[in-house]
Amino acid sequence: MTPTMRAAVLQAPGEITVEERPVPLPDPGDVLVRVTAVGICGSDVHYYREGRIGPFVVEEPLVLGHESAGVVAAVGDGVDASRIGERVSVEPQRIDWSSAQARAGRYNLDPQVQFFATPPVDGAFAEYVTIPAMFAHRLPEGISDEAGALLEPLSVAVAAARKSRLGVGDHVLVTGAGPIGLILTQVARALGASEVVVTDVSEDRLRLAETFGATRAVVADTDLSELRADVLLEASGAPPAIHAGLRALGPAGRAVLIGMGADDVTIPLSAVQNRELEVTGVFRYANTWPTAIELVRSGRVDLDRLVTGRFSLEQTAQALEAAEDPRSLKAIVHPS
Amino acid sequence: MTPTMRAAVLQAPGEITVEERPVPLPDPGDVLVRVTAVGICGSDVHYYREGRIGPFVVEEPLVLGHESAGVVAAVGDGVDASRIGERVSVEPQRIDWSSAQARAGRYNLDPQVQFFATPPVDGAFAEYVTIPAMFAHRLPEGISDEAGALLEPLSVAVAAARKSRLGVGDHVLVTGAGPIGLILTQVARALGASEVVVTDVSEDRLRLAETFGATRAVVADTDLSELRADVLLEASGAPPAIHAGLRALGPAGRAVLIGMGADDVTIPLSAVQNRELEVTGVFRYANTWPTAIELVRSGRVDLDRLVTGRFSLEQTAQALEAAEDPRSLKAIVHPS
Amino acid sequence: MTPTMRAAVLQAPGEITVEERPVPLPDPGDVLVRVTAVGICGSDVHYYREGRIGPFVVEEPLVLGHESAGVVAAVGDGVDASRIGERVSVEPQRIDWSSAQARAGRYNLDPQVQFFATPPVDGAFAEYVTIPAMFAHRLPEGISDEAGALLEPLSVAVAAARKSRLGVGDHVLVTGAGPIGLILTQVARALGASEVVVTDVSEDRLRLAETFGATRAVVADTDLSELRADVLLEASGAPPAIHAGLRALGPAGRAVLIGMGADDVTIPLSAVQNRELEVTGVFRYANTWPTAIELVRSGRVDLDRLVTGRFSLEQTAQALEAAEDPRSLKAIVHPS
Amino acid sequence: MTPTMRAAVLQAPGEITVEERPVPLPDPGDVLVRVTAVGICGSDVHYYREGRIGPFVVEEPLVLGHESAGVVAAVGDGVDASRIGERVSVEPQRIDWSSAQARAGRYNLDPQVQFFATPPVDGAFAEYVTIPAMFAHRLPEGISDEAGALLEPLSVAVAAARKSRLGVGDHVLVTGAGPIGLILTQVARALGASEVVVTDVSEDRLRLAETFGATRAVVADTDLSELRADVLLEASGAPPAIHAGLRALGPAGRAVLIGMGADDVTIPLSAVQNRELEVTGVFRYANTWPTAIELVRSGRVDLDRLVTGRFSLEQTAQALEAAEDPRSLKAIVHPS
Repeated sequence: MTPTMRAAVLQAPGEITVEERPVPLPDPGDVLVRVTAVGICGSDVHYYREGRIGPFVVEEPLVLGHESAGVVAAVGDGVDASRIGERVSVEPQRIDWSSAQARAGRYNLDPQVQFFATPPVDGAFAEYVTIPAMFAHRLPEGISDEAGALLEPLSVAVAAARKSRLGVGDHVLVTGAGPIGLILTQVARALGASEVVVTDVSEDRLRLAETFGATRAVVADTDLSELRADVLLEASGAPPAIHAGLRALGPAGRAVLIGMGADDVTIPLSAVQNRELEVTGVFRYANTWPTAIELVRSGRVDLDRLVTGRFSLEQTAQALEAAEDPRSLKAIVHPS
Repeated sequence: MTPTMRAAVLQAPGEITVEERPVPLPDPGDVLVRVTAVGICGSDVHYYREGRIGPFVVEEPLVLGHESAGVVAAVGDGVDASRIGERVSVEPQRIDWSSAQARAGRYNLDPQVQFFATPPVDGAFAEYVTIPAMFAHRLPEGISDEAGALLEPLSVAVAAARKSRLGVGDHVLVTGAGPIGLILTQVARALGASEVVVTDVSEDRLRLAETFGATRAVVADTDLSELRADVLLEASGAPPAIHAGLRALGPAGRAVLIGMGADDVTIPLSAVQNRELEVTGVFRYANTWPTAIELVRSGRVDLDRLVTGRFSLEQTAQALEAAEDPRSLKAIVHPS
Repeated sequence: MTPTMRAAVLQAPGEITVEERPVPLPDPGDVLVRVTAVGICGSDVHYYREGRIGPFVVEEPLVLGHESAGVVAAVGDGVDASRIGERVSVEPQRIDWSSAQARAGRYNLDPQVQFFATPPVDGAFAEYVTIPAMFAHRLPEGISDEAGALLEPLSVAVAAARKSRLGVGDHVLVTGAGPIGLILTQVARALGASEVVVTDVSEDRLRLAETFGATRAVVADTDLSELRADVLLEASGAPPAIHAGLRALGPAGRAVLIGMGADDVTIPLSAVQNRELEVTGVFRYANTWPTAIELVRSGRVDLDRLVTGRFSLEQTAQALEAAEDPRSLKAIVHPS
Repeated sequence: MTPTMRAAVLQAPGEITVEERPVPLPDPGDVLVRVTAVGICGSDVHYYREGRIGPFVVEEPLVLGHESAGVVAAVGDGVDASRIGERVSVEPQRIDWSSAQARAGRYNLDPQVQFFATPPVDGAFAEYVTIPAMFAHRLPEGISDEAGALLEPLSVAVAAARKSRLGVGDHVLVTGAGPIGLILTQVARALGASEVVVTDVSEDRLRLAETFGATRAVVADTDLSELRADVLLEASGAPPAIHAGLRALGPAGRAVLIGMGADDVTIPLSAVQNRELEVTGVFRYANTWPTAIELVRSGRVDLDRLVTGRFSLEQTAQALEAAEDPRSLKAIVHPS
């Protein structure tokens, strides 16, 4: 008899039910992970409400959740069985290594990548998931399962910080003080930024940003055109923040646009040219987990403090709704 | 008695007169160059017609011209007198080396930079100019004075190509087939691009682009969203070309925005993020002349073929007007 | 009945016999290649004569040969069957993509890499080989099968040139004018080097180097300490050439040590420090085939001219012996 | 009447006398600094004992000392007079900005560089020195004058760490636990190294290294060939440490050779090639002071704790001799 598990399944926009499903079998090279903590991301909420994100449409029932940690419960062919019992953080993707991008070290840009909770690939709001063994990253002592789940958004921040070439003494502007903005603020300080200015529309968020290392926290419509920052980490997705953020950069400034939402945005071309600004975006991450783990293990980044709500698998819909509360940072679902 | 020289001076928009002025004395570290060829740039035409470019306003009479070559006529203190008689191409800037940008190798971004023909700094439509000896680059045999003058726009192209990390086998899109676009096309081929697609609104320009190395030349409104180019070199300054050009890039594509004009432009944020495009601009150049000289010396880039008109110093206004003719590529003024 | 093929098998140092062996079956993701041309590399000769290269010892009968091209004869599961009949160049390695090095884009440094003709992995002196489809690189019209085989050593040169950051106008020193040195000379010119000085102990080789693009070819004991080159591409493996080559570099010079043989070599530490030289080596290659193909397709590099002998599979031992002749450049075995 | 000052002058090996000399006048662009603290470097001791370092021979009386801090006492033409009274750390070099290396951002490699205490350029064992204003770096509150002097060796460490591309989670090997090794250990931790193994021949130094952040400190002849470090920072100059250090690197490891002394050293070529190690050296520094200042200001690096002796200008010879004591770390001379 096939063992079964519970999974929270998005049936239609706004409708999630918990189903019994067969426990997946680990393919060769995979591990089976018993999921203990899943963070909720804005994209989960967006799929839950709208049933789509841009070109990605939920056409079949879908399990959401891509920020997860757990314990290795079984291993597939070719994987060292001693890993059973290991606590792991899940890097939620499967790569086609024959693609030119993957072979060049940019495996996140593999056009065939399969990513958790992106239709039609199921995610982690379930008791068990399978993942390539190389992407089940061992959690050291001292990193909680919840923090293990939140290594995923931290990985986005690590990817962004790398692209920004952030270093000691840099002046950094973080636009947007949601969960990603607060993680970016910590990462910027961890990498040696001497000044981290954070902007947001919410005063509460700004006060919070100060507790996470912002040296200055100001409302989003503050004129920062004289800031001359070295680095912009844009985490709001708001077109005016992008425009103003770019204008706040000094010569040879680097901008990474992380906040999503708009298809098109307006940028100040003359500033990009006259100051030779570099503007780029991040699409998830590649090779970031070891860095993310070390940032948390060494105490440079605190992920536990982001957790503002805890839910059972049956409460997944509530967790998604809680994540919409502006006072919420990270809601965590505990499937098992 | 102070020796005098003729200079073509912009007195007011549309009004240039030739004046007698004292020949400048070379400061310590400078050379005095007898100017033999000056190319006309779009920015010269813009100052001539409008009296300003963005924040740069011509408030006093100004000598235009920043693409120049000539012969060393005298040297200032500390410069080897054996350079007198040397044919040189002029890199038309003076740097404050105490600026952080200059010290870091990005001397073009020195906020105190003084640049020819940018108010209030006089340019090269004159019989003589002075320039730091290090920026009077020796012209090897086989590079004409006219090509020596056009090393300046070639330097812009070299700076752009470097920022794009263009290499062997790259697929390149050049938007805009004016003089800079045609130079970029040649540079892209010289650096090993296997495909160079050029777009323009003019069929004549497209045919010309083919003779300069374009592997495909298409009208500007062609749908190129499936091109998946590695590199975009944007030389039109036209907002639609910028947007379409970015969409034509594949994963990890690099865009350099060279064409000026617009303060703001719209970019496809989702493409920048999903493909991790890198977008930047160039502001003139630093450390490009040796590369530019070698490209011409080795025959990889042909600048002489860009010359479509020749004028005396007295005909400077006519030269500027000729440069507005869409059939013109490069008009050259010969002051001496 | 299993189809069989002929393979030239190294039984013991100096002893090669042609055996009938089963034609290998392509695994999922693999293609089966009918081999048409195999180049002989110095390492093949070394295994043939000594039965080992450093820690790599031939303990079982081994098929040598890792520079090969051919025609796709069959495909494994998951590979597009339309590739059957395609002419291909073989990148002779299998990667464990779960290694950190592979995931970071340096798949050549994967500690589990399996490489043709490195014990105990068989190579290409056989009628058929299998290889991952992604490493069977399509040969465009105009590149011969022999040149297709020699894309392998060209890939080493491409990897070395990348590490050296060789660019337009660089002054390059190539030490050693054997096959790799002659390929490096061509690559250096293709990438824009304005000066390529080649050294060797053989006058014949030096004259040949001139025909491949060397701007100066001098005997190996010439004093080059005043050369101040930008790049050293060391292809002799001779300790004195390495020491002298490093001393010939100017400030910020880059050296890539390609020639193998010595375990230890002496370098001029004071020059490395006072000029901040960068010294590195290459271990095969990663992501080089597209560049190598384009260099040949565009006519920038000529591989056919390196072929100095042609042999049947039965003549493999003769081919290996011919490769020892100092007048030989590249001996090619044609298995089918 | 010209004002005079005291200076400690090396007359001959082992012989230093304090002389009255004219206070130097600041040239245009310079500041005059009243020197308050000067650290003693191994090279000072070497000149004191031997009268030469390699090709640099003390042929005329020379003032030693190149690690200094003080207070701006006067400014030359073109320098803002408000700087008078500012506490500064001295970057002890003068650059010829017309050199290609300087213009490219590598001003330390300018062949005409003039460096303190390198014959025939006098150093800082004096009451006053002049220096370009851009190289008199303002000391923030909270950095002592002694730490200000020691920003110079910290700058060497910053330059080395940059070249090593040291980042979060890296495993680092520091060979040599003298002053530079102890500073490198701190810098490695500040930049996020998760493991810093330090080697030395002295048990006392190893214990000290642990207090400066070493995660493991072992005697220099420990077999570390299985360490597989990401980065080697070599600070001993001892040939066996260099060879063993390189062998301790893993694939794609980066080595920076900082310790001086030997002209030639032996490196493991096969390791450099098989693991594609990158080996380089540092020659002083460029653009490092802002980073060094921030490392100290933020508390990431502690320089004050390195000071083991304090001396007056009259005691300069004693200070140099004290620096030879193996228990000494940094001796500081206080000229005023």
